[in-house]
Amino acid sequence: MVVAVARLGHRSKRDKRLSTHCALIARAFGAERMVYFGEKDAVLEASVRGVVSRWGGSFEIEHGNSWKRLFNEEKKRGTKIVHLTMYGLPYKRVLQSVKGKRLLVVIGSKKVPRGIYGEANYNCSITNQPHSEAGALAVFLEGLGLQSRFRGAKLRLKPSARGKRFTTKYK
Amino acid sequence: MVVAVARLGHRSKRDKRLSTHCALIARAFGAERMVYFGEKDAVLEASVRGVVSRWGGSFEIEHGNSWKRLFNEEKKRGTKIVHLTMYGLPYKRVLQSVKGKRLLVVIGSKKVPRGIYGEANYNCSITNQPHSEAGALAVFLEGLGLQSRFRGAKLRLKPSARGKRFTTKYK
Repeated sequence: MVVAVARLGHRSKRDKRLSTHCALIARAFGAERMVYFGEKDAVLEASVRGVVSRWGGSFEIEHGNSWKRLFNEEKKRGTKIVHLTMYGLPYKRVLQSVKGKRLLVVIGSKKVPRGIYGEANYNCSITNQPHSEAGALAVFLEGLGLQSRFRGAKLRLKPSARGKRFTTKYK
Repeated sequence: MVVAVARLGHRSKRDKRLSTHCALIARAFGAERMVYFGEKDAVLEASVRGVVSRWGGSFEIEHGNSWKRLFNEEKKRGTKIVHLTMYGLPYKRVLQSVKGKRLLVVIGSKKVPRGIYGEANYNCSITNQPHSEAGALAVFLEGLGLQSRFRGAKLRLKPSARGKRFTTKYK
């Protein structure tokens, strides 16, 4: 099961930290890459790549020019497009329909283009309340239960009841 | 089950949007309030209260001066303190131990005071990878399965496969 994330409407100044968080969530929960739209942002890309180089795995971040083109390309490959939005259908129902499929998970910024609702295969809500694309993405990806090994990590943690324990060995 | 969130180290300029997202996540997933530490921020508070007044419920946001004092007060009331950190023990194990208990869920900013790890009853990780306090909070609260009715809402959504549907009636 291959999952990518599309982040719409990035603004370098305003969204840098949230887009970084979204990319790191995508990586931590096992997506393979995040394509972001809006302003190209070298600092965002560098900070995500810095995490990948220290913490391992092959997660990629890239800037895209047209979400429509990406949607079309992905649909041709059989990818299902899941748009996370407070207006959508409950995610637990959507999860059941999409598990095991190749997915593009779409998250917006403040306002998404109207066309997204029609182009997505699923409009999917994580609660019907306003909150956060980062929170929605984390809950949805966690629900997919993807596995990631983060090969080649320089840093690796050992879960600990108190304080910080590192290991670089594979368990 | 009563759950509150403590957000540490807020900086008005840098963290406004992430702290807002964390507060809205807390509300959407059924916590009753968020206490934030660091810089007092009227804009953060106003934006969260604006959401509450439109979308209902009784979620509160307040500024705190001392996390130690809050921890002590809450411990006296029997509250268990769960610190979300990538260094901690897997959250699914922690969820089993804390379900049904009164909880204070603590999320940091970039760097949390060392003392937190010792003062918390549980240090709890949502993946042992770096990502986002917003993502961690959403996954943890979702796992608790809290219920919230958001009484008095002016705005209410009807889950929809396409587009946006509003209702103000209770289902």
